[in-house]
Amino acid sequence: MSKSTEVKGKDKEVIKKLESVGKTILTQIDSGKEPAIELPVRTLGNIYFDKKSKTIKLGDKTSQRQFLNVAHARKFMQTALVASEIKKIIGEQATTSIRDLYYALKHTIAGTTENTFEEQSESDPIIEDIESSLDLLREELHLAASSKGVIVGTMKVKDGKDTIDLTKMGSGGWGIPSNVEPERIQIKDLDADYVLFIEKDAVWKRFNEDQFWKKNKCIIMTGRGQPSRAERRLVQRLNKEFKLPVYALMDADPWGMYIYSVIKQGSISLSYSEEKLATPDTKYIGLTVQDVDTFKIPKEVTIKLNALDVKRLNEMKKYDWFKTKEWQKEFDLMKQRAIKLELEALSKKGIRFITQTYLPEKIKTKDFLP
Amino acid sequence: MSKSTEVKGKDKEVIKKLESVGKTILTQIDSGKEPAIELPVRTLGNIYFDKKSKTIKLGDKTSQRQFLNVAHARKFMQTALVASEIKKIIGEQATTSIRDLYYALKHTIAGTTENTFEEQSESDPIIEDIESSLDLLREELHLAASSKGVIVGTMKVKDGKDTIDLTKMGSGGWGIPSNVEPERIQIKDLDADYVLFIEKDAVWKRFNEDQFWKKNKCIIMTGRGQPSRAERRLVQRLNKEFKLPVYALMDADPWGMYIYSVIKQGSISLSYSEEKLATPDTKYIGLTVQDVDTFKIPKEVTIKLNALDVKRLNEMKKYDWFKTKEWQKEFDLMKQRAIKLELEALSKKGIRFITQTYLPEKIKTKDFLP
Repeated sequence: MSKSTEVKGKDKEVIKKLESVGKTILTQIDSGKEPAIELPVRTLGNIYFDKKSKTIKLGDKTSQRQFLNVAHARKFMQTALVASEIKKIIGEQATTSIRDLYYALKHTIAGTTENTFEEQSESDPIIEDIESSLDLLREELHLAASSKGVIVGTMKVKDGKDTIDLTKMGSGGWGIPSNVEPERIQIKDLDADYVLFIEKDAVWKRFNEDQFWKKNKCIIMTGRGQPSRAERRLVQRLNKEFKLPVYALMDADPWGMYIYSVIKQGSISLSYSEEKLATPDTKYIGLTVQDVDTFKIPKEVTIKLNALDVKRLNEMKKYDWFKTKEWQKEFDLMKQRAIKLELEALSKKGIRFITQTYLPEKIKTKDFLP
Repeated sequence: MSKSTEVKGKDKEVIKKLESVGKTILTQIDSGKEPAIELPVRTLGNIYFDKKSKTIKLGDKTSQRQFLNVAHARKFMQTALVASEIKKIIGEQATTSIRDLYYALKHTIAGTTENTFEEQSESDPIIEDIESSLDLLREELHLAASSKGVIVGTMKVKDGKDTIDLTKMGSGGWGIPSNVEPERIQIKDLDADYVLFIEKDAVWKRFNEDQFWKKNKCIIMTGRGQPSRAERRLVQRLNKEFKLPVYALMDADPWGMYIYSVIKQGSISLSYSEEKLATPDTKYIGLTVQDVDTFKIPKEVTIKLNALDVKRLNEMKKYDWFKTKEWQKEFDLMKQRAIKLELEALSKKGIRFITQTYLPEKIKTKDFLP
């Protein structure tokens, strides 16, 4: 914890990369060139769905941030400040939030009335610049993104000196930390057949209370709505390192289905990190409008689509990754019936219908959407 | 987990209370009276700050819900439905969300086109009616409120067959379950001097990463913003059953200070349960505008109060429970300087200033607000 803590492994590599930013600038100055930093362009025009990796990706376009350009000078200074502060944080072996970083760097520049940063909205994109140009995850920069999910199931995690048995969490769960990189979190004694990713906390609680993970040898986790980076990264690790299938259980509405697509192929805003966050193997286990027929779900518990739902549905129909016949069929059915439904609607068939009948049935018949 | 699970202890008592609702109606019918249910009035006029218990409370006013009154008949039917479904859930030894309960009960009444419930906003107040009239906590009715907080520190919890050591949670924490009643959660091997309740998850993570709870023998928890019932109930249990002092660490703004007041004396919307949820012993450890002077916090990291802040501040100044000279002084200082500040602003003084200097100093000098 002290400043003298030795920096090693991945951290050493990251510090080298950060130092390279400074060294490049120095070399440019020494050779009489204008100091400039090369950065990937992160606008929509440089983002695409990569059919090979099956994730959303950043293209090859780059732009220059020049010190002697009035329009670039402030951002140039900010980039150097952020890179240097991150180096310091790693050196102290601490982790910090992007909000802390903003405050730590905010000051009035000596001899002027100008602040280094006015708002956090100025420092956040600089962090993203550094992540994307150095091809590093935010977590590798020791920056903590928020995480709010919980996990239990037939495995253990080793986190520092602690080994946490995820079969012994009672009615709670292990609160997923913001950094789940292999250097921090080791997965041990995994004896599960699949990962079940549940959109909603209340539904996750039902699965935990019924000890579904014990009877069905699996891992259950929730991101409590749109999952944050840590939950997505953990799913990817369980899939890539341990070859576990991943099933997503969401509301049958455009929002639930969109969250699924973020788990599966990523989001536009994090395009530069998606290869390390997305899990293209993920399958959509439910709910679907088709389930209404399959499981004879009473009409009263379905909800009418509203104008916003229909608009979103039409947009999603056009996304590259939803252009499979199975998804197009589901979207068409949703439009035609003009209904959506929530996971909790299954309670109409009994409080434990979802854990005792619906899920086991779906897995047995492999009734997934791709 | 099966339907034949024996119902005992508190559950048995709760079922008796639920049955008494039905029995009263039957007795009324048998004796030729109009069926009616007596309910506490839950409007603002019947809510007050009780100076003895130091919590927000519901007064004695009641109203009648009559079966033969056209304006009451629908709600009367709904009340009977909800009470009966809750009895069933307890009988099955399950726990469910209020959203599940709504869906489970929603159906079209035979021979009509009328639904039992149209929206969850119809079933939620009925649940509150039952809670307040039978003087039961939602958790005792086996209804799971959402919970999103995490906890670590020098204690263990026994939850069913699992004993969870809260000193061994790594960089994560134990996700607080929605029911923390003594029948569910037993507190074991508690060896802590106080509870530190932290408003923000990112700040909690700083305290956890620095193992503050180990060096200072304490329990640290966060509700990630406005805490839910489970987090508040757990704080109350640690204070009432184990006599632990409770310190709240919030942003120095009207919102952080209001969250503090909810932990301490409760909220208007849950007035009927506050005696079981609020912790009047809670002390406000920070941040304050006074801290700006005490800890020489640079001006750049303070934020200007906006019109909404000032409005809220003026409202809060008038609350009974804020009418102490210490709080009035702090509010006046905030108005006079026209600034607020976030916990993360302390990072300006160093990433670990908050855990290594600020908090220990505040506790040492007992620099609290009441």
